[in-house]
Amino acid sequence: MHETLIEELTRTIRAIPDYPKEGIVFRDITTLLQDARAFRRSVDALVHPYIGIGIASVAGIEARGFILGGAIAHQLTIGFIPIRKKGKLPADTVSIAYSLEYGVDEMEMHRDSIVPGQKVLLVDDLIATGGTAEAATKMLQEMGAEVVAACFVVDLPDLGGRAKIEALGVPVRTLVEFEGD
Amino acid sequence: MHETLIEELTRTIRAIPDYPKEGIVFRDITTLLQDARAFRRSVDALVHPYIGIGIASVAGIEARGFILGGAIAHQLTIGFIPIRKKGKLPADTVSIAYSLEYGVDEMEMHRDSIVPGQKVLLVDDLIATGGTAEAATKMLQEMGAEVVAACFVVDLPDLGGRAKIEALGVPVRTLVEFEGD
Repeated sequence: MHETLIEELTRTIRAIPDYPKEGIVFRDITTLLQDARAFRRSVDALVHPYIGIGIASVAGIEARGFILGGAIAHQLTIGFIPIRKKGKLPADTVSIAYSLEYGVDEMEMHRDSIVPGQKVLLVDDLIATGGTAEAATKMLQEMGAEVVAACFVVDLPDLGGRAKIEALGVPVRTLVEFEGD
Repeated sequence: MHETLIEELTRTIRAIPDYPKEGIVFRDITTLLQDARAFRRSVDALVHPYIGIGIASVAGIEARGFILGGAIAHQLTIGFIPIRKKGKLPADTVSIAYSLEYGVDEMEMHRDSIVPGQKVLLVDDLIATGGTAEAATKMLQEMGAEVVAACFVVDLPDLGGRAKIEALGVPVRTLVEFEGD
């Protein structure tokens, strides 16, 4: 019988109880990525609304967003912009601080990776509280990018990330939700 | 006039003098990745010998190897296995230590990402001394993988990495060389 995409994602994404700490169920997409069909199907499903509408670049968030983002940029035949942890990019960067559960961190992108008006698709594997994606969106917008959408394979809707990105005027596209995480 | 691939790569890969320290010329592929044509052309050129020969997975080395590796896995419609720095993977892992210029580090992969005999393509952006790729190749081979080839966009031949990988019985494929680095 034909397996729907949501069935396939639910089957291939591994749930790891009590990781990284007790009471948290970690949604591990490495088991999805290892599966040729699930990986291909996820990329194609995420990306099909964005074919041929003038998007110039995928911005992928380190590190798992690099895997999906690289595949999506290739599928759309557009460029790829890495958004990295502080201190990892070799040329002139812009940066933004964002809050973690304990403390703050900083992410960076190369200053010359965006020209004003450039259409960008933001990509990461999963949206939870949305703090990382929100900071990445703000940094792209401050550089003058038009963030056309933010794409994630997994949404953890109880953690409210989607609303943070939508509040910046950016639609959010996800493929599967896990509740109660 | 038609630009050859080597001309295009030489033009789009940025040279950053004295990074990360004096006397080193850092070869920055982010400017290549930002360029839709150069990125697409690199992936297609790296991968074409490996279409339809039964490779099951790309193994990509964190972090820049994730971008190219994700694109290559998508292009070949095969799975992707992340090789990560210690402590980043959530399930049961195998690990290998490797030497850095100062000290040692450790990389890991999920134990269930390989079945014996599985054909794998190793991917990273650049090969220099080859220490990271050598460790990754050994770890894959110890898990029973057949590493069909190791692919890199950039080779720094003066640093001798290629011979380390070939000594493990694995052919090396690269697209452009920069000498004197």
